Amino acid sequence: MQDHSIETPTTRNAKNTFEVIEKAAIKLFYKRGYHGTTVKDITAEAGVAAGTFYLYFPSKIALYKHILSNFSHNIRKHIAEQVRSKDTRIEKERAGIKAFIYYAQKNPEMYNIIWESLYIDRALFKDYYESFAVRYVNGLEAAKQNGEMRPLDSEVVSFILMGITNFIGLKVVFDLGENNTDVDHIVDVIMEVIKHGLFK
Amino acid sequence: MQDHSIETPTTRNAKNTFEVIEKAAIKLFYKRGYHGTTVKDITAEAGVAAGTFYLYFPSKIALYKHILSNFSHNIRKHIAEQVRSKDTRIEKERAGIKAFIYYAQKNPEMYNIIWESLYIDRALFKDYYESFAVRYVNGLEAAKQNGEMRPLDSEVVSFILMGITNFIGLKVVFDLGENNTDVDHIVDVIMEVIKHGLFK
Repeated sequence: MQDHSIETPTTRNAKNTFEVIEKAAIKLFYKRGYHGTTVKDITAEAGVAAGTFYLYFPSKIALYKHILSNFSHNIRKHIAEQVRSKDTRIEKERAGIKAFIYYAQKNPEMYNIIWESLYIDRALFKDYYESFAVRYVNGLEAAKQNGEMRPLDSEVVSFILMGITNFIGLKVVFDLGENNTDVDHIVDVIMEVIKHGLFK
Repeated sequence: MQDHSIETPTTRNAKNTFEVIEKAAIKLFYKRGYHGTTVKDITAEAGVAAGTFYLYFPSKIALYKHILSNFSHNIRKHIAEQVRSKDTRIEKERAGIKAFIYYAQKNPEMYNIIWESLYIDRALFKDYYESFAVRYVNGLEAAKQNGEMRPLDSEVVSFILMGITNFIGLKVVFDLGENNTDVDHIVDVIMEVIKHGLFK
């Protein structure tokens, strides 16, 4: 998904400007949506000259793709950092789910910007979740191989786990229903379900 | 969520026109998004005079709310019909999940239109999932009471189940990853997970 038409600048000043434009775009895409935001809006919000934008990004869509790709990269990196020290798959799963929820809490614009890909270019949306699933499947297959997990269809399981994590993240970030402050309790319930199931 | 400003017409002709406008709007909201569709686009697509729209709907947002409310109602009705004949909660759950996936397959515009509420009016999006969760919780509480289900936090469980169903529906409808034609197999995997969990 990385957009190769964008080169991250190397000098300090250029890096700053690049990041200021990026942050302004995230703020505006979140507030007004992609279609409701113009390049001019972004440069005005960033406090840079209108022409500056095109020194860094060939187009608004290129900037959007860059932001989407960054979210994908940063979420995975954040999860990987929390999971690394865990030995068993079940501990990795707990740490990964918790890391996702905390990431979503700290980046409330995440859902809006990722899901808006569905309305910008459906291929981006598909690619986002497919590439997430592929990486998930690798971990699940390893845990099946070493006997930690039951031999279920890993691809279906990856969407089950992404669905759980995304909807619980949604609940917490958008404060849907009650008791969204106790993330530990919520993660405990998820772990009970994926450890032992729902039924007696 | 029902918008009381809209009265469903009673005469046959008026009913037809109402439905033609509704269908045209669903098609265009799906194709171009809510913000990319004007009332004029809708009446042109429907083949009715521009002024006709306002005989039925006070505004584009009122029509959108009506469509969203209808999706919510129809999904629940479709699920209820499939679930009614089942005796145990586990059979009801299987039938409900399958019904949701089939409904999503037959109405591929569903995800786009429901999730776009996030970009139209965040309160609509919240209300949509909160009201779905409230009804889910009622069923889960009953199954806990009669001893079929383990005593877990029903609200968290409702979001876990909605997450699973929505992301598996997404996988099937958008053809994410492999093997999306065998819905029975996919539902079997989901049932294994919610019956016995993922781990050994």
